[in-house]
Amino acid sequence: MNKAVILMSGGLDSTTVAAIAKDLGYELYCISFDYGQRHRIELACAKKNARFFNARRHLIYRLDLRCFGGSALTSKIKVPEDRLLSPLSGQEIPVTYVPARNTVFLSIALSWAETIKAQDIFIGVNSLDYSGYPDCRPAFIKAFEKLANLGTREGVKGKKFRIHTPLLHLKKSQIIKKGLSLGVDYALTSSCYQPSPQSIACGHCDSCLLRLKGFQEAGFTDPIKYR
Amino acid sequence: MNKAVILMSGGLDSTTVAAIAKDLGYELYCISFDYGQRHRIELACAKKNARFFNARRHLIYRLDLRCFGGSALTSKIKVPEDRLLSPLSGQEIPVTYVPARNTVFLSIALSWAETIKAQDIFIGVNSLDYSGYPDCRPAFIKAFEKLANLGTREGVKGKKFRIHTPLLHLKKSQIIKKGLSLGVDYALTSSCYQPSPQSIACGHCDSCLLRLKGFQEAGFTDPIKYR
Repeated sequence: MNKAVILMSGGLDSTTVAAIAKDLGYELYCISFDYGQRHRIELACAKKNARFFNARRHLIYRLDLRCFGGSALTSKIKVPEDRLLSPLSGQEIPVTYVPARNTVFLSIALSWAETIKAQDIFIGVNSLDYSGYPDCRPAFIKAFEKLANLGTREGVKGKKFRIHTPLLHLKKSQIIKKGLSLGVDYALTSSCYQPSPQSIACGHCDSCLLRLKGFQEAGFTDPIKYR
Repeated sequence: MNKAVILMSGGLDSTTVAAIAKDLGYELYCISFDYGQRHRIELACAKKNARFFNARRHLIYRLDLRCFGGSALTSKIKVPEDRLLSPLSGQEIPVTYVPARNTVFLSIALSWAETIKAQDIFIGVNSLDYSGYPDCRPAFIKAFEKLANLGTREGVKGKKFRIHTPLLHLKKSQIIKKGLSLGVDYALTSSCYQPSPQSIACGHCDSCLLRLKGFQEAGFTDPIKYR
């Protein structure tokens, strides 16, 4: 079995990605980041899903991105609510952007992948129903793959790293349908940027709005609780 | 004054880089990584140098690269000694290589730079007298700069990040001469991969051999202690 490192936040997208990698026959090495996010409930979700999918290992990696500040996800900046979202919202980058987050996460995943001799890294970025983050775009992923193969011993030796983005061109509703067909239990996922202490989603942040719209378009009811 | 983020290990190269950035008129934001390295003495050196150069801030960033294993610098693998070193040693990558280390370090430096609105990141990589690490090569640095400008809000908005590598094409002896001309006190730097508990350098690892050869060629005596 080939090993795959899965960036697993505990959200809808990365959980679907884990299901896809499993379906492709990979042995799963899941990594989640405890980076001082306000929505830490997603880490508990990641744990449940890593167990559900029989991951070989699940690493929760501590990393303090709060010390830099600069994002509504890691500081007291207000999370925007009830904004009109369109596929073109990529023009504007919201305050929930965490500086260089995916660059940092992919780098650490790469370090782990190289150590365990995995060549495949899966990440749930999406270029359609997304929040406008620059580090979710295809050009960014391609540049990271190139970097990975220039900056590592395994890459230089010719064992190429591949960054897999199976959701890149899917709409949120298609992601949900795909996940359901592969056995994903979306009740075990969390997407809200500002859940209540009881883990109830707000239903108003960008992430909740995208998720709710996705379920609606897919023709299913989201199984998680909203306030 | 423009801000610059300096990757500062406390070693000879990065300390010289800090002196160069200061000389160019930048306000220094130094970052050092506490990543479980055996040679932690270098962090104390980094602190002394950040103070000496009047850095605006010095951040010691904790990051566990030990949990992955795979390198003589973070585990109990034996550090090689008394190897014949030549500029062509890049053909072979030594066991002191830490998987994807510079990718991880640069990513975190980028996250900080974006937060404080610095566009300039300085790193002391060198392609002549180096240890053969893939993530010290010019092609790697160029690929990272491209990535930085694709994967960040500031990069996308057109405020380009620059990765400065002022030592890239210098011999170790030239680096030392440059540093001395800028006031560097090399007694406050540490290069050894396996210093004694009293911070005495071994004089036999790749890093010590390169340093000693550099001082010899520059016509100076290394002020630090060797066993």
